[in-house]
Amino acid sequence: MGPDDVSRLAAAVGALDEDAMATAYLRQGRLTKPTGALGKLEGLSLWLAGIQRTSPPRPFARKRLVVFAGDHGVTARGVSAYPAEVTAQMVRNLVAGGAAANVIARRVGVGVRVLDLSVDGDLADLPDDVRRHHVRRGSGAIDREPALTDDEVRRAFAAGAAVADEEVDAGADLLIAGDMGIGNSTVAAALVCAVTGSEPVDTVGRGTGIDDVTWSRKVAAVRDALRRSRHRQLDPLGLLRELGGADVAAMSGYLLGAAARRTPVVLDGVVSGAAAVVVSKISPAAVAFLAAGHRSTEPAHGAALTYLGLEPLLTLDLRLGEGTGALLAVPLLDAAADLINDMATFDDAGVSDRG
Amino acid sequence: MGPDDVSRLAAAVGALDEDAMATAYLRQGRLTKPTGALGKLEGLSLWLAGIQRTSPPRPFARKRLVVFAGDHGVTARGVSAYPAEVTAQMVRNLVAGGAAANVIARRVGVGVRVLDLSVDGDLADLPDDVRRHHVRRGSGAIDREPALTDDEVRRAFAAGAAVADEEVDAGADLLIAGDMGIGNSTVAAALVCAVTGSEPVDTVGRGTGIDDVTWSRKVAAVRDALRRSRHRQLDPLGLLRELGGADVAAMSGYLLGAAARRTPVVLDGVVSGAAAVVVSKISPAAVAFLAAGHRSTEPAHGAALTYLGLEPLLTLDLRLGEGTGALLAVPLLDAAADLINDMATFDDAGVSDRG
Repeated sequence: MGPDDVSRLAAAVGALDEDAMATAYLRQGRLTKPTGALGKLEGLSLWLAGIQRTSPPRPFARKRLVVFAGDHGVTARGVSAYPAEVTAQMVRNLVAGGAAANVIARRVGVGVRVLDLSVDGDLADLPDDVRRHHVRRGSGAIDREPALTDDEVRRAFAAGAAVADEEVDAGADLLIAGDMGIGNSTVAAALVCAVTGSEPVDTVGRGTGIDDVTWSRKVAAVRDALRRSRHRQLDPLGLLRELGGADVAAMSGYLLGAAARRTPVVLDGVVSGAAAVVVSKISPAAVAFLAAGHRSTEPAHGAALTYLGLEPLLTLDLRLGEGTGALLAVPLLDAAADLINDMATFDDAGVSDRG
Repeated sequence: MGPDDVSRLAAAVGALDEDAMATAYLRQGRLTKPTGALGKLEGLSLWLAGIQRTSPPRPFARKRLVVFAGDHGVTARGVSAYPAEVTAQMVRNLVAGGAAANVIARRVGVGVRVLDLSVDGDLADLPDDVRRHHVRRGSGAIDREPALTDDEVRRAFAAGAAVADEEVDAGADLLIAGDMGIGNSTVAAALVCAVTGSEPVDTVGRGTGIDDVTWSRKVAAVRDALRRSRHRQLDPLGLLRELGGADVAAMSGYLLGAAARRTPVVLDGVVSGAAAVVVSKISPAAVAFLAAGHRSTEPAHGAALTYLGLEPLLTLDLRLGEGTGALLAVPLLDAAADLINDMATFDDAGVSDRG
């Protein structure tokens, strides 16, 4: 997928259907509750109507989480509390169903798919669907070299867009973007800084729970990455090449692909936030198909959400990734769709409206 | 239920089991995630372990919402955007399953029970379980007279405690307190002001969505109620007699009864917040069995949660009541219980812990 293909995909992103949203707004006003009393859930129901082009919006029939896994060369600088081998181990844990995201997904009725984009470990025994989109073993150490080649950016981005297509073709009507990879919050912070102009010291967070010395190394790595890439071509695909990784590039393709197919995506933490920031540079219109599941404790995540103009549904001090924060927001989206479909109207129920 | 009976119930409230909480804390540290990465969900799992006296805590087997319905004489002062007849109409809507709380309850697996404590309308055709605890038609207009007699306080409080007992006896292991009643946010604001010392102008909110003139009348009514009752006996049952209502008194009994049975309760909005504030004066220990499902837009609700030291799980700009905000928080509690039970440990999954 070259720049022209990405442009074609971006051109396929439509707008929310304002007529359907207006119809949903009128319906909200006839339900047996004071106008606006359901707060943000009313806005969610309008958003779903605008995406689905129908009012009331259909409850979700098939909800899917795709976890994009990859390693990052920058971990050699000692930016994480965990060794890089944990990425491959956690991919196995996710495939086996024992990770936090699996547990929450079962509770909220979401199917989980795990993709190895750039894990630096031997996963040859895992199912083909997990391995099929593997681009390289570990993305480059962004403080000293590009994360990817131009060709790798294209392959990873195309893989993510293709996965969104596959999921929508299989009936998915709500998608979630999850991440797994030691070092990925460092890469995400670098991308957010590059796009929003934030300073690394204000943006770099504690990731998996690092101490002050590790945090200083992480800030330095992000600063070095920004300095190294400053005079390079930083169009959106260039950002992914210099400061991203195959996992983030694929997630970006997935977000753009979902928007092109008019399918809502719930973002999770700082990694999906960084991917969304990159996608907003390719297609500002794609942001209208995104919801922010939660706000994590990573400062870069807050900067990304502010830049995108997205208000998080939950603030639970999560900092795990995998899609966990997005999954926890799913019942709110389900409830928003249920309420506008199933609540009685003032007329149905014989309830007096305000005088 | 006289003051002595209430004291006996209060004396039955135990403490959270610190051993079980410590065991749960150690288990959290072995799950395949960085320590603390699940944020507030980890605290919820410890809380459930402390209540259930076991680690890991059992996932909920039977979740129940009880909606306490009542009318309030203060509505004659024009404090609401809706006529008082809406209370009875909405009770019918709740019994028929068409209200917002019913829709969300179905989504999150909670059974709904509706109780008429003091509705001022003819509900004789509704099932006996709804009508069985009826105390009077409309509580007194608190700006000019006591809400209840001492005997009515006792009967309503005892009814709520008995309902908690019935629910726990029937297997409920998570209870929710919901409200329905035009004027009940006025009464709740008066109770919160009386206990916390807040000023009515800082505490009275927009309820169902009132305009400035109605809001001024609502503030005046709360101020008049506080002035009228100032020199009266305002022990906790006196608060319910002077400033409450049969619905709030029953909800208070329900909260205390649940705590005495070591059963967690999720609070909803300002009405259950006011009941909890009253209960905290009877038994400070009972607060440990309460969770705040959300923070509504009513200022009195924020004042109540601050007074109780409870942090809301959700902030979605809800102002509906019925239990809706508490219901939306239920999947977070379910997830907290699932995670500590079902996640793989580092040893199980062969994942390396931090170095």
